[in-house]
Amino acid sequence: MVVRAPTSAVLIIGNEILSGRTAESNLQHIAQQLAQRGIVLHQAQIVVDEREAIIAALESLRHTHDYVFTTGGLGPTHDDVTTAAVAACFERAVILNPRARAKLLAHYGEDKLTQARLKMAHLPEGVELIDNPVSAAPGFRIDNVFVLAGVPEIMRAMLAGCLSRIVGGPALQSRTVHCLVPESTVAAELERIAGQFPECDIGSYPWFRFGQYGLALVVRCSDRAQLDAAASAVLELAQNYDPLAQLAL
Amino acid sequence: MVVRAPTSAVLIIGNEILSGRTAESNLQHIAQQLAQRGIVLHQAQIVVDEREAIIAALESLRHTHDYVFTTGGLGPTHDDVTTAAVAACFERAVILNPRARAKLLAHYGEDKLTQARLKMAHLPEGVELIDNPVSAAPGFRIDNVFVLAGVPEIMRAMLAGCLSRIVGGPALQSRTVHCLVPESTVAAELERIAGQFPECDIGSYPWFRFGQYGLALVVRCSDRAQLDAAASAVLELAQNYDPLAQLAL
Repeated sequence: MVVRAPTSAVLIIGNEILSGRTAESNLQHIAQQLAQRGIVLHQAQIVVDEREAIIAALESLRHTHDYVFTTGGLGPTHDDVTTAAVAACFERAVILNPRARAKLLAHYGEDKLTQARLKMAHLPEGVELIDNPVSAAPGFRIDNVFVLAGVPEIMRAMLAGCLSRIVGGPALQSRTVHCLVPESTVAAELERIAGQFPECDIGSYPWFRFGQYGLALVVRCSDRAQLDAAASAVLELAQNYDPLAQLAL
Repeated sequence: MVVRAPTSAVLIIGNEILSGRTAESNLQHIAQQLAQRGIVLHQAQIVVDEREAIIAALESLRHTHDYVFTTGGLGPTHDDVTTAAVAACFERAVILNPRARAKLLAHYGEDKLTQARLKMAHLPEGVELIDNPVSAAPGFRIDNVFVLAGVPEIMRAMLAGCLSRIVGGPALQSRTVHCLVPESTVAAELERIAGQFPECDIGSYPWFRFGQYGLALVVRCSDRAQLDAAASAVLELAQNYDPLAQLAL
């Protein structure tokens, strides 16, 4: 029986990524975590901290994927507009969430729970909170959308909390064949193998370093028998051109 | 006179990014190069190596931005489908481009110019080539879309070629104030400053390390006088809470 794997999209919110100031550093971690749980990450979008840009992206993603994960824009400053944009998408009011306020109160104490900090407890009505063990201000889930912080260590903690609560599919496993062969040399035969194993995703990733051509041929599949058979075929192909070609997990 | 800066989007094509296998490593470089030339990068999308996914993303981006830059999917293997997808977007046939063929011939020689390699000279009709000084197979420009390789060193060389030929706007400059202050402490006053300088983009980027809170407050503007005035106001604000707050270019 083939179980359909859930699909997902990531929406990264932050001017700092698009200005070139900051290297995006959350996507690979999210992608790896989703893959381990058999959730297919089908696309990612990166948008500026502007309400309309966030709304447009979220509307395009949330109806076409089982899950959407957003990162960034949850803080106390004027450029943090994610919560307002998500609320607008779902036509919910933004209200002071008593449980979120309690978390901030426990973290900061009454005297340091300023108006600016209280902004982080103003959330769309009817959300489920996502714990933030680092700095208290929670993320939240609304329908199929998980709204996470952008600071990597906070995002990772929040994501771990989310993933423990959602149902994944059969985990994708991968095998990689490493060889020193130009990819055009194996292109035709690799296409034939890909045709023989339609359930496997076979990717070809060339590299050039110090005048040397190399190639990583990656087979991904949730069915272990198909995976091993396809990987063996790819390894045999690679060894025809590079006797030292190797298979790695 | 305010000159409208051209807008742009980046479309990153590659299963390897969305599977978590590979960290995306082109976006920050592209973002920095565009910012230097006064081209606003408004969004980025990352999609799988599938024809329909590429077409959908490109159609959503090319009509709403002055320029679109794509990376990835130009190689000789079965999982390289970018050229076919771009051709479909523009309703052009894919043909053997004689100039592209000549470049591959010069690079490989007649005996090594295999069918697989010739695939890389099959391009949509009527495109302008983008040189590839690393491995010969060219990128191409079609209308406002620049189709670049995904291998970082090739992408960078291609991008440099493109950018020398397109018109930018006034370059965005930035100033950053670094301080050891929780961002909620300055949130209200920072919003007031942002309101006073509507032409400036003011971003607040907190960090947490070793139990220490820190904050980078980034001011960006293409008008130097506005930039300096806003940066001074932000520095003064930060120094109210951290006497060692510093301004950096």
